[in-house]
Amino acid sequence: MKKIIDNPNDVVDEMVSGMSKAYPQYIRRIPQTDALVRANEASMTGKVGLVSGGGSGHEPTHAGFVGKGMLSAAVCGQVFTSPTPDQIYAAIKAADHGNGVFLIIKNYSGDVMNFEMAMDMAEMEDIKVKSIVVDDDIAVENSTYTQGRRGVAGTILMHKILGAAAQNGASLAEIEELAKQVLPNIKTIAVALSAATNPETGKPGFTLKDDEIEYGVGIHSEPGYRVEKIKPANELVKELLGKLDNELKLDSAKKYAVLVNGMGATPLMEQYVFTNDLFNQLNERGLKPVFTKVGNYMTSLDMAGISLTMLEIQDDKWFEYLNTPVETIAW
Amino acid sequence: MKKIIDNPNDVVDEMVSGMSKAYPQYIRRIPQTDALVRANEASMTGKVGLVSGGGSGHEPTHAGFVGKGMLSAAVCGQVFTSPTPDQIYAAIKAADHGNGVFLIIKNYSGDVMNFEMAMDMAEMEDIKVKSIVVDDDIAVENSTYTQGRRGVAGTILMHKILGAAAQNGASLAEIEELAKQVLPNIKTIAVALSAATNPETGKPGFTLKDDEIEYGVGIHSEPGYRVEKIKPANELVKELLGKLDNELKLDSAKKYAVLVNGMGATPLMEQYVFTNDLFNQLNERGLKPVFTKVGNYMTSLDMAGISLTMLEIQDDKWFEYLNTPVETIAW
Repeated sequence: MKKIIDNPNDVVDEMVSGMSKAYPQYIRRIPQTDALVRANEASMTGKVGLVSGGGSGHEPTHAGFVGKGMLSAAVCGQVFTSPTPDQIYAAIKAADHGNGVFLIIKNYSGDVMNFEMAMDMAEMEDIKVKSIVVDDDIAVENSTYTQGRRGVAGTILMHKILGAAAQNGASLAEIEELAKQVLPNIKTIAVALSAATNPETGKPGFTLKDDEIEYGVGIHSEPGYRVEKIKPANELVKELLGKLDNELKLDSAKKYAVLVNGMGATPLMEQYVFTNDLFNQLNERGLKPVFTKVGNYMTSLDMAGISLTMLEIQDDKWFEYLNTPVETIAW
Repeated sequence: MKKIIDNPNDVVDEMVSGMSKAYPQYIRRIPQTDALVRANEASMTGKVGLVSGGGSGHEPTHAGFVGKGMLSAAVCGQVFTSPTPDQIYAAIKAADHGNGVFLIIKNYSGDVMNFEMAMDMAEMEDIKVKSIVVDDDIAVENSTYTQGRRGVAGTILMHKILGAAAQNGASLAEIEELAKQVLPNIKTIAVALSAATNPETGKPGFTLKDDEIEYGVGIHSEPGYRVEKIKPANELVKELLGKLDNELKLDSAKKYAVLVNGMGATPLMEQYVFTNDLFNQLNERGLKPVFTKVGNYMTSLDMAGISLTMLEIQDDKWFEYLNTPVETIAW
């Protein structure tokens, strides 16, 4: 393992510290925690708070999306490990400005359990809390750390849409309703070329041969659904798009947002080659996305690979929310 | 070589196509070229045009910085290869709105030669063109493709400062003067953990052992100044900061901007650990940067490593220009 770190056990603490020092205009570290809250206090006044988080190693997720118009706070667990309830509770308290707090949780058993415990703690303090569990990864049912489907890159579109709604003054009940409407329309599927190496363990999460790829791998190196020989980008697109089509029933009369997400070590050049093939194949289906993002958003440390997220935009309001300007490090 | 590409010879064409399809709100491909021009025509009216470019493989540089408040156009050469004069000329023409065009060239012999030829072509068409050659990399004098010092990540700070000045209505002469003032105050130095693999050749640019790093490597895998065993992040920072101090004579009475730049395959987690150590060491010297960016800005495909850029801000106007909002894919 060759990494730019100091003590492997301190990576999350040092990372959180580095983020808060580099970007004090956006984020502030909550003392005695690995949680970060929005620096712009005034932007939270009278609004519902929005909190997300999970294991670290997916940067810029989630802390890169804390700021006006997006998250109020993010909790950084140890690498690929759920944050503890007390840390999540600290983030909820910091995000609460009297109008309640909404939690965006990725569907991993540890996260779900710890966020629920934190909710209980908050409710005992009379903070109103609601939540959604994002399970956008269509690769497999149940997985190493998950009952049901995993939560992956589509979570960021949820952050953005709910963040804009909250900034717009939506109530806690309205945000909960919006989250429930959006959730079944976000689907994601990935392909991996190589695994991430966790700095705390020093080991890659899986191994593939020099000419192999794996479809459907998770963001913590959870197994996917098929290993095969590497293929040209346009065939990878065909495979992933086919899977999304099975779920979303792609329809040229409908509007879609697209997120092409690099897993960490895959150059933007490859991500754009993939995007080009994707647009060509969407075009053949009579589809043209109305909103697109390409880049490293929900990474898995130094994993090589790409995930493809599509969101069927069922309400023009969602489109507007995707396009609302934000003040964050990474959107 | 395991990469998400189709034909290795088409990577740049497909990448440029993918970029223009994904982000039509920012960029438009100039027909029959691999150059991209700002989509917002109105933002260029009455302004000096700003053009940069070079070999591809450094994404999001340069096309990711085309947009209101930053570059007018960017030319994408083949991987690690200078764009041809006719392509640069096409970008100059597209960027010209009657007030002249300023070129930001990274100091590589091929780039300098081809941009100069394009300048001659433009001047024959009565387009006024001025230029600056950025040579911010302090690692070595002369290099595989360079006379003098190489142009690397600091180039992006030049894009940003000149871009804001141009958007503000600065004349061609004023932009040239500003560029000359800023240039000697931008210095960069890198450390690499592993080389990039060029998709056109299929080979890594150099090899290091599993426990080795190299200081001062260039963005096309040009040799650095020392190979040694991997060290903790804080010792890497100490080495790089020492080199920058030799050049900039760091002074707690002065103001600095900092760019911590991932080379492509290095996770943000490592970049922020590095940033934390950097801020601690700057703090020991009584220094606190007034402007900071951390992320993948001037990459070298899938190279693992980090470069550190510091700019001594000699004029508050530069600080203001660094902070002016832009409409680009990647700033």
